[in-house]
Amino acid sequence: MRLVVALGGNALLRRGERMTSQNQRANVRVACDQLAKVAIGNELLISHGNGPQVGLLALQNAAYEEIETYPLDVLDAETQGMIGYIVGQELGNRLPFDHPIATLLTMIEVDPDDPAFDNPTKPIGPTYDEAVAKGLQADRGWTFVEVDGGLRRVVPSPKPKQIFELRQIEWLLEQGCTVICAGGGGIPTMYEGGQLVGVEAVIDKDHASRLLAVGVRADTFVMATDADGIYTNWGTDNQRQIARIHPDTLADMAKDFPIGSMRPKARAACDFVLSTGKPALIGALADIEAMLDGDAGTFVSVEIDSVVYRDQLEP
Amino acid sequence: MRLVVALGGNALLRRGERMTSQNQRANVRVACDQLAKVAIGNELLISHGNGPQVGLLALQNAAYEEIETYPLDVLDAETQGMIGYIVGQELGNRLPFDHPIATLLTMIEVDPDDPAFDNPTKPIGPTYDEAVAKGLQADRGWTFVEVDGGLRRVVPSPKPKQIFELRQIEWLLEQGCTVICAGGGGIPTMYEGGQLVGVEAVIDKDHASRLLAVGVRADTFVMATDADGIYTNWGTDNQRQIARIHPDTLADMAKDFPIGSMRPKARAACDFVLSTGKPALIGALADIEAMLDGDAGTFVSVEIDSVVYRDQLEP
Repeated sequence: MRLVVALGGNALLRRGERMTSQNQRANVRVACDQLAKVAIGNELLISHGNGPQVGLLALQNAAYEEIETYPLDVLDAETQGMIGYIVGQELGNRLPFDHPIATLLTMIEVDPDDPAFDNPTKPIGPTYDEAVAKGLQADRGWTFVEVDGGLRRVVPSPKPKQIFELRQIEWLLEQGCTVICAGGGGIPTMYEGGQLVGVEAVIDKDHASRLLAVGVRADTFVMATDADGIYTNWGTDNQRQIARIHPDTLADMAKDFPIGSMRPKARAACDFVLSTGKPALIGALADIEAMLDGDAGTFVSVEIDSVVYRDQLEP
Repeated sequence: MRLVVALGGNALLRRGERMTSQNQRANVRVACDQLAKVAIGNELLISHGNGPQVGLLALQNAAYEEIETYPLDVLDAETQGMIGYIVGQELGNRLPFDHPIATLLTMIEVDPDDPAFDNPTKPIGPTYDEAVAKGLQADRGWTFVEVDGGLRRVVPSPKPKQIFELRQIEWLLEQGCTVICAGGGGIPTMYEGGQLVGVEAVIDKDHASRLLAVGVRADTFVMATDADGIYTNWGTDNQRQIARIHPDTLADMAKDFPIGSMRPKARAACDFVLSTGKPALIGALADIEAMLDGDAGTFVSVEIDSVVYRDQLEP
């Protein structure tokens, strides 16, 4: 089976956790314990988010005042190096020595006319209090939105149009490689006067991973995050985990999901399932194997009739 | 012809130049104007240094005091992402759209017993004055040496033993890819209790590139740097550029070359030429094509009788 597993940036560097290299590695290990179980006997592609990581690099950049902050395309490329390395190394430690792993830098094209450029919505980095945010807004022209009672920097999140390295990824898969690619939503690029240039944006990781999953004709598309599935009435006494759902039903529900958390995942799942007829899964980093066995997470498929909640399943 | 071209980190971010993203891109363009001319019709592998770049990331890390500095293996991986992306993008802009380019993260094994760990010698980052260097020594345990009248941080530079991604590189070459790999000397790793772990070190880029060139059985190994060749009596009125030299003659001369500049390049060239019988070239980033045509740089080959200076050649 050909699988694309997208690891959430927030699952690799969890909210409230100090953004140290050690903490990141500890979370990567949780993911790799799972990924190692599916890397053999399947064609496995791993993508990952980079929200907290690119935020950290932007902060480190900004703290060193002698050199102007590097643009987001370059920072994304740095996170592809950083996260891709740690995932590749930790996964390799859990697989036979001769199992090949390839971490490939990936550029993705976006449309210069994408309306996202007029409306930055993608939060990166930590939560600031108002005084600090106002300072950064004045000094650096950053845009902020209120998230969870604090302020977070937001940047444009244009739609991914094209992954440039699809052939290279295919060639590596054909040789039996586990391929780590399209990290951080891919390096955002666009054509300007016939030349490919970097873009100050962050492509949504779930949509980039969906484009990857469609592009490589994946049999299943898995999004592993810091939540164990999709819920209705999330955060209330009535919350219910969705075990199985038809993409049309999910697309309808997703309108009410919060931006920047489950909504892009739900939309990416629907897009994949509706355009390929293959299923998608959303659930926790530590449950990847159980998700693929049908025992955890939310399964999105055209073969499901409307929706089945976890509490409706046989124990 | 299969070529390995190693781009010097100092040639990509020149001494005295501000370490901005724009300056780095401008130097990459100079290299890519040359590389594009040899990418078609040859099997081209590109490696690169990262001395100034990893130094910059270490400074940015250190400037943001809330999170401990990330270790050098992670920073190296970040520079592979950053530099690999810019080189790949700029090269792609100079080649037909369908010419495949692959930037592959590369881990290299070093020996835990390498004597380099007891004797840090590899300078990274900028030159500090004494007061600042003493502060960093006390705060972070960094080691410094005097270079060109100032103080530079030095880190261990163990010998590269093994490139883990050689098969992946070969597979991509076989498909016609130009491959960017082994950046920054490769991500330094070692085995510790059967697990591969990152190492606080920087592998010399020239020796890592030499190991790559030997590993892929390159026909020619090119080191492109900020000097236009090897000179005797460098920096004096009697300086003479070496046009062609036998590796035994060069190895003998190299003992007098300054550490950290031409000496590792000369040694890497000698090692490659003596172990493979194939030639190596050392010269300027802007002269890569002319070097391969025999019109610039220093050509190291077992077929040369001792040494020929440029001023001895027909005009």
